[in-house]
Amino acid sequence: MKNYINLSDITDLQALITEAAELKKGDSTLEIGKGKTLGMLFFNPSLRTRLSTEKAGKLLGMDVMVMNAGSDSWKLEFEDGAVMDSDKAEHIKEAAAVLSQYCDIIAVRAFPDLKDREKDEAEIVLNSFKKYASVPVVNLESATGHPLQALTDALTISELKQKERPKVVLSWAPHPKALPQSVPNSFTEMMQNLDVDYVIANPKGYDLNPEIRKSVPVIHDQDEALKDADFVYMKNWSSYENYGQKLSEDRSWTLSKEKLELTNNAKVMHCLPVRRNMIIADEVLDSDNSVVIQQAGNRTYAAQAVLKEILEEKVKVTKLGKNA
Amino acid sequence: MKNYINLSDITDLQALITEAAELKKGDSTLEIGKGKTLGMLFFNPSLRTRLSTEKAGKLLGMDVMVMNAGSDSWKLEFEDGAVMDSDKAEHIKEAAAVLSQYCDIIAVRAFPDLKDREKDEAEIVLNSFKKYASVPVVNLESATGHPLQALTDALTISELKQKERPKVVLSWAPHPKALPQSVPNSFTEMMQNLDVDYVIANPKGYDLNPEIRKSVPVIHDQDEALKDADFVYMKNWSSYENYGQKLSEDRSWTLSKEKLELTNNAKVMHCLPVRRNMIIADEVLDSDNSVVIQQAGNRTYAAQAVLKEILEEKVKVTKLGKNA
Amino acid sequence: MKNYINLSDITDLQALITEAAELKKGDSTLEIGKGKTLGMLFFNPSLRTRLSTEKAGKLLGMDVMVMNAGSDSWKLEFEDGAVMDSDKAEHIKEAAAVLSQYCDIIAVRAFPDLKDREKDEAEIVLNSFKKYASVPVVNLESATGHPLQALTDALTISELKQKERPKVVLSWAPHPKALPQSVPNSFTEMMQNLDVDYVIANPKGYDLNPEIRKSVPVIHDQDEALKDADFVYMKNWSSYENYGQKLSEDRSWTLSKEKLELTNNAKVMHCLPVRRNMIIADEVLDSDNSVVIQQAGNRTYAAQAVLKEILEEKVKVTKLGKNA
Repeated sequence: MKNYINLSDITDLQALITEAAELKKGDSTLEIGKGKTLGMLFFNPSLRTRLSTEKAGKLLGMDVMVMNAGSDSWKLEFEDGAVMDSDKAEHIKEAAAVLSQYCDIIAVRAFPDLKDREKDEAEIVLNSFKKYASVPVVNLESATGHPLQALTDALTISELKQKERPKVVLSWAPHPKALPQSVPNSFTEMMQNLDVDYVIANPKGYDLNPEIRKSVPVIHDQDEALKDADFVYMKNWSSYENYGQKLSEDRSWTLSKEKLELTNNAKVMHCLPVRRNMIIADEVLDSDNSVVIQQAGNRTYAAQAVLKEILEEKVKVTKLGKNA
Repeated sequence: MKNYINLSDITDLQALITEAAELKKGDSTLEIGKGKTLGMLFFNPSLRTRLSTEKAGKLLGMDVMVMNAGSDSWKLEFEDGAVMDSDKAEHIKEAAAVLSQYCDIIAVRAFPDLKDREKDEAEIVLNSFKKYASVPVVNLESATGHPLQALTDALTISELKQKERPKVVLSWAPHPKALPQSVPNSFTEMMQNLDVDYVIANPKGYDLNPEIRKSVPVIHDQDEALKDADFVYMKNWSSYENYGQKLSEDRSWTLSKEKLELTNNAKVMHCLPVRRNMIIADEVLDSDNSVVIQQAGNRTYAAQAVLKEILEEKVKVTKLGKNA
Repeated sequence: MKNYINLSDITDLQALITEAAELKKGDSTLEIGKGKTLGMLFFNPSLRTRLSTEKAGKLLGMDVMVMNAGSDSWKLEFEDGAVMDSDKAEHIKEAAAVLSQYCDIIAVRAFPDLKDREKDEAEIVLNSFKKYASVPVVNLESATGHPLQALTDALTISELKQKERPKVVLSWAPHPKALPQSVPNSFTEMMQNLDVDYVIANPKGYDLNPEIRKSVPVIHDQDEALKDADFVYMKNWSSYENYGQKLSEDRSWTLSKEKLELTNNAKVMHCLPVRRNMIIADEVLDSDNSVVIQQAGNRTYAAQAVLKEILEEKVKVTKLGKNA
């Protein structure tokens, strides 16, 4: 693995899940990261991603440096050819090339604005780092994807599934704010690579990007979708068609105990943070069906597996930022 | 020790003070924390507590992860059964259970609002972490107590006392803002567990919580209280009776050289940060009577003793956050 | 080396540059910092300085604690004798003495206000730390100097020079904001200690402090200055005469390819962050003449050399903060 920006960066998914499961046992002392530095750059807040990735790096023996872009430093310019006479003090060309000299791996979180679909889909922050950094880049959630979460989800399903080909339902749920599509996007891509029977439930107007969904069935009747599900992944997202809009806050989509009874005693997943009694009712989150805590715990091992595979790749990309 | 939230969590105070004094000698290389992670979560600013506790963890071989709740992540919901449709993105139930998977000890700072006594005394942040975390929780100063400071103070007095049973005076002093009662509360509790002659001096209206004070004499005449004192602990706090109010900024309560002459050449203590010429005059702070710097230095060893005892306890509380 | 606040703290410049070059090879495992703590305190934002110095400390085996003064803690009072009844919660006397107990070296960044020349030149933050800390203090860029950058620049020139005595030109360039003089000041001081032919080019009104410039020629015609230059250091600064003012945004001073042709195929330097197409044109920054990335990479080794020399000094200054 050279970078971990999209799921397409994974060369052997099953091997990566197995590696993460092995790392979870934790009995081997890993020295592969010794003397190596992981730099984590946050353009947006983070709790799980921040702490689990920091921990994953340290479990591999790495030094970890964490920076809040913005409050710790300054605004970056991403536009080629810009005359930098505004409030943006540094161009990504320099920032990425310089960070590449201080860090052996650069991990970046950069959310979408949810205003301009084309701009968000250009993934300018992540792609600029990929273009101008001379070291591997890891996606800590970008405008359109969250591949570390998706790997975590795959590990969690593979740990908990009780049949060869479980039915997995991703269901939209109401939320007071318009949220990115990054988690449902990456989950949907991941499910297409696992041996599962996968369907998406969402209200009309909330269908995910058809290029990501491909042939995954979308059902606009939640009850119908939930029937016989072995895993239910609850998540809010904003509209893709009416890009970035909140079209509904329909609380009949909240996962209640009653709705859960439609399923095959399904395991309930969520990437967290979860809005209680909006996305999932207390009675479900506090029941044994909820695996959200175990799922969050797996974040560490998913990140550790990715960082380990990148470190093992060893061969450093040697292009210089300024020549890229 | 399972947690360190209140002084009542201490099983053997004298042993803990002795341990801290031993750790201060610093000649043994400690490996007890190797591969263990301390997570520090700050809901409020910190200098001494932040750095001394981080250092204490590292001296024990721990990895330390520091987070500013709020600026680094988002607001937490603490109310049971809340429909989370406001600005609070994550419930403490999830946050505490998830952090418990990334950290072997969670340390939390959460100040009071000083608006609603009942709410502050409920210590909802610390108690929620205690309830929902599956690992030990350490209090880095909460709404009503600062037990790491109190242990530091006990260590400092035990290092410096020149008689079996010294006279210790806690005196209120003026301050431009209304401050919490956490430091005087914990100090008062601690003094009741040490072999000292303890009195509190404060203006009328500033008597501390009677449930904490118990039979400790309160004197409203500072000069009378200071007489023959071996230790004077200066500190501002807001009113408990008129909860959270600043009733006075009476600068005749500032500790001056003249006032110090009433004492038995007392050692002068303060938890810092100290407002010079409000709480204590320059002439006192810059004299040999002041032990505030030594006292602050002891923060590291108090924290180290607490973390070490918790790590030694080993037996991890195994309750799951979601079942608590 | 006891501190590294000004270039005058360097005892043997050539030895220090050689040390940095040796450290850059990176093949020796250094244990000199083991069990030692570097505390970094930022009153202003930072990217390169923050990460390169943190990395330098860790490469020496040190623990590194980073704090944003202000957002992580509170405002400091620097005035002697102040009655602290305003928004400043802690006096530098206590802060420096306390940090000295948690850290073996304290590194501080504190920019100028650019409003009051006398105040800025008093370097109250750095000098107060030097005065009240009992451990060595390192300047991470102060009101009037940036000696870690200057050492980096000297290392870079010594790596790249192709003749015994190269011609080095420092040239002013336009910028939308009024910037400090710290980088050009320290660079100018450094150049006076290297075997180089050094000239400064800037518009009228932008002559640097004559006490720092001394006999360095100042040329107000950029083209004339650039002639036959082997190194061109581009940088904006505000006026010293009309202290802190932006007198010009004259873009004819931007370094273009055309201007570069006046030089002896000069290497182009900048401390970064650089405003593209204001300070230096894309065509130059993206050419092989630009060495700004290599220069930024050298920050790590300059910092490492300074920290190593300070650690080797071993003999701790033992003055107590409160007696200073």
